[in-house]
Amino acid sequence: MSEILVVGSLAYDSIQTPSGKVDRAMGGSANYFSLAASLFARVRVVGVVGEDYSTEDFDLLKARNVDTSGMTVHKGKTFHWSGSYEGDMNEAITHATELNVFEHFDPKLPEHYKDSKFIFLANISPDLQLKVLEQVKAPTFVGMDTMNFWINSKINDLKAVLKKVDVVLINEHEAMMLTGTANAIEAAPKVCELGPKALVIKRGEYGFVMYSQEEGFFIFPAFPIVKVTDPTGAGDTFAGGFFGYLASLGKKPSMKDLRMACVQGTVLASFTIQDFSVKALAKTTMDDLKARLDKYLNVVKLH
Amino acid sequence: MSEILVVGSLAYDSIQTPSGKVDRAMGGSANYFSLAASLFARVRVVGVVGEDYSTEDFDLLKARNVDTSGMTVHKGKTFHWSGSYEGDMNEAITHATELNVFEHFDPKLPEHYKDSKFIFLANISPDLQLKVLEQVKAPTFVGMDTMNFWINSKINDLKAVLKKVDVVLINEHEAMMLTGTANAIEAAPKVCELGPKALVIKRGEYGFVMYSQEEGFFIFPAFPIVKVTDPTGAGDTFAGGFFGYLASLGKKPSMKDLRMACVQGTVLASFTIQDFSVKALAKTTMDDLKARLDKYLNVVKLH
Repeated sequence: MSEILVVGSLAYDSIQTPSGKVDRAMGGSANYFSLAASLFARVRVVGVVGEDYSTEDFDLLKARNVDTSGMTVHKGKTFHWSGSYEGDMNEAITHATELNVFEHFDPKLPEHYKDSKFIFLANISPDLQLKVLEQVKAPTFVGMDTMNFWINSKINDLKAVLKKVDVVLINEHEAMMLTGTANAIEAAPKVCELGPKALVIKRGEYGFVMYSQEEGFFIFPAFPIVKVTDPTGAGDTFAGGFFGYLASLGKKPSMKDLRMACVQGTVLASFTIQDFSVKALAKTTMDDLKARLDKYLNVVKLH
Repeated sequence: MSEILVVGSLAYDSIQTPSGKVDRAMGGSANYFSLAASLFARVRVVGVVGEDYSTEDFDLLKARNVDTSGMTVHKGKTFHWSGSYEGDMNEAITHATELNVFEHFDPKLPEHYKDSKFIFLANISPDLQLKVLEQVKAPTFVGMDTMNFWINSKINDLKAVLKKVDVVLINEHEAMMLTGTANAIEAAPKVCELGPKALVIKRGEYGFVMYSQEEGFFIFPAFPIVKVTDPTGAGDTFAGGFFGYLASLGKKPSMKDLRMACVQGTVLASFTIQDFSVKALAKTTMDDLKARLDKYLNVVKLH
């Protein structure tokens, strides 16, 4: 088993959905990723929080044996996102993004983080993603996420990161935006032309599209969930399950391994959306995941 | 092999998409269905056209050995639909619907149609769907489609048809509208409570959701297509491939058979959308379908 290093946001989210709302609940890509990946492997987090970040929220990661020594506490408030979902649960409406301490985040890896083999650069500014990658000695497998904001504002830095990663995990709209294409199928090969060997396009309730130049497309649905309470963090949970599974294999992943990693990610994400914030994810055990994985394999069984 | 009876619209479509446009090209649910299903089995069509319906369009069906003796020519013009697709290729924008001879359509089955074993009631008024079903002697397997217009205007007739069919094939939005639910997963069991043993929810570029009380969910993606030229008729092609495959088995279908029928339908539909109107579908051979089916099985292969 290999260690996973993740850099991303550690946030408080205020979220409203048709099922209700929460105020300043634990969120951010690195938190969702860590809670998910730590079911499979040891996770090391790099990130910044404010003085308002609660001990309980640190403890949640520690309870999963996540290494939080790369989480620094800065004077000021924790990054705060507020948003809502209406009608289309695949698309969040952002009400406010208060960067707070995240605005001057300058990731520095603790010494013992630098030999991490699996690296996930969650959705942060591409120049910070590069900074993290430069501090890692000899990674086995590197993945990244990004978003429309960076595609619009920092495309050159983003292209530099894309050249250095093995896999990209992004949303459908972002894949289309990045490549100027009309759909995920047209976008996929064009993303890989920018550098990564493989690409996973996350489609929310419709599942995912994986593509590699080596093996072409692998497309599967999401696990069927009757009631989506809060879709926030589904994509980061997917990435956490994906990386956690690969790290648990303890070797350089093959393209075949990536297929099962996608399945682990999509099934684990189906827990996250069943409650607000990280509530459902934090309670999910490996036994829960295995039981739902069996059900999922029946949903995608042709014969 | 069993005969398939289909009742539905025979139309001329004027369609505009980002790829171009066609004017008064062959369309309508029964035409797409017949061209698709006739790759597998003998198809009998019931429908009405106007005096403007061309010999070439009759001949296209006859070339696939489709029985057109239930197609009647009435004084007046053929049903004409005009619409466009912009941005979201999953959703047509209707510009005009001229019912013409279709307005007073009163389906009467030729005597030799009445022993048909596989019946597909394509998207027409539910009272006409009932009229057709009453004329059939002892069907083995009955399916239906419907649309938002009938859900809003003829819900009681629609519920009467739903009680008499084995399978429903509808779009995602229609499944939600029919059941007052927020997504396809919540909708599926509720549609089956209305009568049918199984339900197929068509999701356009995202594939389909099949559900039965016996076996639960079966969810698979669409065949990956880089350029969608014209999505019109994809759902009816799916239904045609689905029914054609089942009829070719020549027995009462099992729930397992329905899974492969969905795959045949989704792969065949991927041809239809690659050109305007029925152009690509009419050229598709069983060899083409088999070759693409092999590719599809690789796209949905986990190991």
